[in-house]
Amino acid sequence: MLYLIGLGLSSVEDITVAGLKAVKQCTRVYLEAYTSILMAASKEDLEELYGCEVILADRELVESFSDTILEDADKVDVAFLVVGDPFGATTHTDLLLRARSLGIEIKTIHNASVMNAVGACGLQLYNFGQTVSLVFFTDNWKPDSFYDRIKENRQIGLHTLVLLDIKVKEQSFENMARGRKIYEPPRYMNIETAALQLLDIEDLRKEDVYGVDTPCVSISRLGSPQQKLVSATLSELANIDSGEPLHSLVILGNRVHEMELEFLLEFAEDKEKFKRAVEVEIEAGKTKLIQTVEDEEED
Amino acid sequence: MLYLIGLGLSSVEDITVAGLKAVKQCTRVYLEAYTSILMAASKEDLEELYGCEVILADRELVESFSDTILEDADKVDVAFLVVGDPFGATTHTDLLLRARSLGIEIKTIHNASVMNAVGACGLQLYNFGQTVSLVFFTDNWKPDSFYDRIKENRQIGLHTLVLLDIKVKEQSFENMARGRKIYEPPRYMNIETAALQLLDIEDLRKEDVYGVDTPCVSISRLGSPQQKLVSATLSELANIDSGEPLHSLVILGNRVHEMELEFLLEFAEDKEKFKRAVEVEIEAGKTKLIQTVEDEEED
Repeated sequence: MLYLIGLGLSSVEDITVAGLKAVKQCTRVYLEAYTSILMAASKEDLEELYGCEVILADRELVESFSDTILEDADKVDVAFLVVGDPFGATTHTDLLLRARSLGIEIKTIHNASVMNAVGACGLQLYNFGQTVSLVFFTDNWKPDSFYDRIKENRQIGLHTLVLLDIKVKEQSFENMARGRKIYEPPRYMNIETAALQLLDIEDLRKEDVYGVDTPCVSISRLGSPQQKLVSATLSELANIDSGEPLHSLVILGNRVHEMELEFLLEFAEDKEKFKRAVEVEIEAGKTKLIQTVEDEEED
Repeated sequence: MLYLIGLGLSSVEDITVAGLKAVKQCTRVYLEAYTSILMAASKEDLEELYGCEVILADRELVESFSDTILEDADKVDVAFLVVGDPFGATTHTDLLLRARSLGIEIKTIHNASVMNAVGACGLQLYNFGQTVSLVFFTDNWKPDSFYDRIKENRQIGLHTLVLLDIKVKEQSFENMARGRKIYEPPRYMNIETAALQLLDIEDLRKEDVYGVDTPCVSISRLGSPQQKLVSATLSELANIDSGEPLHSLVILGNRVHEMELEFLLEFAEDKEKFKRAVEVEIEAGKTKLIQTVEDEEED
């Protein structure tokens, strides 16, 4: 049996009771260690709670050597641990399809991930559109497909959850070219960088998708005792110190109810400014709605 | 301290290790019992694991008598248990705002909910648009605002998660009018009803948002050992027997990758038919994309 077990957001004890039971009966335990990190727990912490060795699975192992992970999994129990939920942003579909083709039974134990726990900011999950990812820009590589996605969301009033890049066990271009297995130190995008990169693309594309005054919520260390939410405009977020990882960001749409706004204001330093920013957003939404109705009447 | 604790999807053991620890130290434990149900666990099962009494909190208690729940929570620990994640489809913002105003500290322990565990069907969560709810129709009440939301999602190629109505502790109109506290037996919408209601609204609105051949995935008893997924067209789903609750439904958009399709086919009875339905969907998406580009060029 292949157990796909979600570890939740932050500490060793965020695993479910059922998940812990399952992992304790497994012969081999792998931890997917390249799409996210468990913020407040080391490999050793996990090994102590589970009472067994935890094998770190990097991208190479999961994507190129999945048969190593799946070896004998038709006879013994193997655990594949994933931070958050096993079907979070990355679904590991290739590993599962491979397991299926080998006739290996699969059991999933779900857990919280940023995709649902983002509701902690108080915005209804119903009003979120598609989630986007933001990768670290370089001088000559600024992939901006997220901009079109945010545009689609905002045109219909929806919020956008922006997931921020993490780079774990990455090689420099030179080391890769020379085949040297030397890895760069891990990097986690912070809120400041994310806000600057977002504004950078608005400056380049100029389609008025969002701007310096667009209301946002920064979400740092979600689900940990050090969790911090900040309600602020995009330009304010470009100037905060968001601290330790992990971070993500919500760009608000115009579907914000009074009670949600009240909830968000608790996280705003300049409450009046944030309130005004949200009101402008809502007002713009109403104008667009009237415009759309007029357009349709003309048709 | 007010602990908001997510119970996850199905069994008593879906609570996290941290959540169980917290609930065991609480003086009073409430279970929110009107927006969802824990499929494979009774109140007694919970009480046995927690070693304490669990008080069922209906809508009236949470919305009108929240001060009863919050009594003394500045001095003792009170748990408010929510099936799924505490910030799932319903965020209980009013309860939290009230707790805040009373100066009560709040701690959230997250868990899986259908909003992220829906990824189990193999579709990337990135390609889901806004989630919608479908309520039970009556002869003269067919609320159809979900139709506009699904339209918005499908116009930009996104999948839609459709949450299906549950009715717990509801009064008949007559009993309510006469002030008799007699409640109807609980009802949970199944896949067949959902599919029929969706097609009913398409028949009435005729905006060609979806149709009998639109590919969907039905998700029954998610996260339980009896979990069952069915990939089928909407009209096929109107004729299945989806069995015990809970159920939800995904209406596919046109952003489906080859590997996702391969994953979905495992859940299809008529694989060829489903594959064709998805291919038609993708093809229609491409046509619309070309159309949009032409329109923009004309502008």
